[in-house]
Amino acid sequence: VETIHSTADQFGAKGVWGPEPTQTGVCRLALSDIDKQVKDWFIEETTKLGCTIKIDECGNIFATYPGKNNNAAATGMGSHLDTQPTGGRYDGIYGVLSGLQVLRTLKANNFVPNFPITLVDWCNEEGARFPMSLMASSVWAGVKTKEEIYALKDIYDNKTTVYEELKRIKYLGDVECSYKANPLHAHFEIHIEQGPVLEKYGKKIGVLTGAQAYNWLNINIKGMSQHTGTTPMEFRRDALLATANIIVGINEVAKKFKGLASIAKLSLLPDVVNVIPGDVDFVLDIRHETDEGLVNIRKGCLEVIETACLNKAGNGVKLEYTIEDPYPYPATHFNKKLVEIIDEAAINIVGEDLKHKMVSGAGHDSCATNLVIPTAMIFVPSKDGVSHNPCEHTEPEELEAGFRVLLEAILSYDHY
Amino acid sequence: VETIHSTADQFGAKGVWGPEPTQTGVCRLALSDIDKQVKDWFIEETTKLGCTIKIDECGNIFATYPGKNNNAAATGMGSHLDTQPTGGRYDGIYGVLSGLQVLRTLKANNFVPNFPITLVDWCNEEGARFPMSLMASSVWAGVKTKEEIYALKDIYDNKTTVYEELKRIKYLGDVECSYKANPLHAHFEIHIEQGPVLEKYGKKIGVLTGAQAYNWLNINIKGMSQHTGTTPMEFRRDALLATANIIVGINEVAKKFKGLASIAKLSLLPDVVNVIPGDVDFVLDIRHETDEGLVNIRKGCLEVIETACLNKAGNGVKLEYTIEDPYPYPATHFNKKLVEIIDEAAINIVGEDLKHKMVSGAGHDSCATNLVIPTAMIFVPSKDGVSHNPCEHTEPEELEAGFRVLLEAILSYDHY
Ligand SMILES: NC(=O)NCCC(=O)O
Ligand SMILES: NC(=O)NCCC(=O)O
Repeated sequence: VETIHSTADQFGAKGVWGPEPTQTGVCRLALSDIDKQVKDWFIEETTKLGCTIKIDECGNIFATYPGKNNNAAATGMGSHLDTQPTGGRYDGIYGVLSGLQVLRTLKANNFVPNFPITLVDWCNEEGARFPMSLMASSVWAGVKTKEEIYALKDIYDNKTTVYEELKRIKYLGDVECSYKANPLHAHFEIHIEQGPVLEKYGKKIGVLTGAQAYNWLNINIKGMSQHTGTTPMEFRRDALLATANIIVGINEVAKKFKGLASIAKLSLLPDVVNVIPGDVDFVLDIRHETDEGLVNIRKGCLEVIETACLNKAGNGVKLEYTIEDPYPYPATHFNKKLVEIIDEAAINIVGEDLKHKMVSGAGHDSCATNLVIPTAMIFVPSKDGVSHNPCEHTEPEELEAGFRVLLEAILSYDHY
Repeated sequence: VETIHSTADQFGAKGVWGPEPTQTGVCRLALSDIDKQVKDWFIEETTKLGCTIKIDECGNIFATYPGKNNNAAATGMGSHLDTQPTGGRYDGIYGVLSGLQVLRTLKANNFVPNFPITLVDWCNEEGARFPMSLMASSVWAGVKTKEEIYALKDIYDNKTTVYEELKRIKYLGDVECSYKANPLHAHFEIHIEQGPVLEKYGKKIGVLTGAQAYNWLNINIKGMSQHTGTTPMEFRRDALLATANIIVGINEVAKKFKGLASIAKLSLLPDVVNVIPGDVDFVLDIRHETDEGLVNIRKGCLEVIETACLNKAGNGVKLEYTIEDPYPYPATHFNKKLVEIIDEAAINIVGEDLKHKMVSGAGHDSCATNLVIPTAMIFVPSKDGVSHNPCEHTEPEELEAGFRVLLEAILSYDHY
């Protein structure tokens, strides 16, 4: 707990939600200077514990604590240290620091596990600066190529690439980024829920059985830039009016199919008070617990877009639009054996009544690792369900309980 | 005409709409380097014609061509040389260059008017970079103070002020910016229509009787930044969903009251794919031919905003909002005598059938001058009604006819 707040203060405090030094958020965008600083710190701390360090060609850091059989693949645990621009202190960070606490505990007790244990800081999980979530864990799992991610551009300057930044901050490692070349035997991840479910049900530990399917569609709508003062309502082709109808419509679609649909990133051209927007770009984020549910939401949203562009906003003239519709992240189903190990650890630590089986709303690096190795996850509650916000908060006792479940699960897997 | 294209090429060509050198737009933001360049050019050209130059403390330039009675207040004509970021070649520019052509014609004929004639380049009419339209003409007319406009900030960097830029480009003059200290006897302005009316009716000259009332309201809506993946639809407080309902609603309000309502400038915080917008800022632009009509539209829009924030987007929780609601630009009614002079000139040049009495949709510097001196305006057609867009176009013969109406009106006023 103390490490969470001291690193938050050192490496990216931003946005205040209270008078205490622990009451600010974190802004630590992937591959920024402060991301480099916290990576350096991570290596320093794990090296002190006797870990060997590997940095791969996508900026992932693997810190391996030795066991009795050092030729076997290690038990993995990890999460991410990058944050949203208006992020909190826990999202991702808690997972890496809990893993660090596991290693510190082993060291403090001079405990030698049967197999090595690797703590991973996965690079750019958020996709906030370079727009691909689970970026480097997806390359490790073989579903993205390093060429794809190297070419991603900083959304703020639309220029700087991942490759340039990896080089600049000296985290372009030489280890191949691949579960084949640099394997793990399993992956455990602990994370804050980032939603209201545990809190609402009064539970302390979430035992995750999987995660939602999701997809991010990039959409562009073309209207016509005209003067707001001289263009009668009935002659307009207003790309923002079409977008507004879409925002309202996709909210209905999501409710209908009991999933999620959100538009949260949007830009207008020319974005001037008295010029009707001729061009609107936005991203549509859709999610569902099942792959079929996601298909339904996608279909419903595409109909909404077609209808909104067809007549109303263009006064009879159809507005042109384009949709970039990447392959979705499918619904994740975690490894049954690992879920069982976590479930038992949770019962031991907080008792049957305070643990809760659930599905993750957000994507996590574990969704990538689960594609290629046994994976499972643990959740702790998020106060008011708030995340991606400086007000993100989890009580110290809850953080502690989560850490103990992780420790017990790791040791139990090591025995098994 | 030639001057329009040569200055457009020299001082800010941007955005291509065809293969010809005359087929690009202009991006000449107020007080930018190229605004300075075109101001320098304007002074050079008018000085060549024997004009005396005054630069006032708000960056307006007055070029005065001498007459027989140089102690009397001059007949004024003018418009603006700044443009929108995605502007065309005609908006404002045509008015200043037509005025220049009037002076060149007098000079070429060695004609000495009874009274001096002043051509004005009004500074920052667009309000695109520094957000106040009719900026420096409003100070001249006494409805804004120079302190107010000096403090306006560049919307792109949210830092640089009008005062700093006036100083930097050396257009912070020492003449008091006031119709009292630096008077004109009347103000004539020729401008492109920027709308589709003249073209639709097959008319060549618009004789303006006035201009719409309008107002720009700054609105901020506060929701809650939460994770799009983990926050169920029914727990959200989505500031963008509220805004979308507002955009749809104000479009209906405008139609109902036969006026205009537009949202064209909008920004989200944090503007990230997977964070529900917790904060949305936008500007609402409302207009009507009558002051009462504007009151009705304003009222209807405020109701739409209240309703959108009250329940739906916040799932029962009211979203907070603030509205900055400045004093509106009232409906403009031009001076009857000047309208008559223009009407007669139009009949002489294009004939009774091709001139059309109308009201301006957009605000113009003449709306400011009309508050304190006799003012009137002339319109020429805009192809497809397009403006604030590189595709802005008016046929050379139409430009020529407009110039001739302006020349005749100025001479007729000089006699009168
Ligand atoms: N946990 C998290 O915020 N992941 C980013 C990808 C997503 O939006 O689900
Ligand atoms: N003519 C013109 O674009 N004026 C700017 C103010 C307005 O939007 O009416």
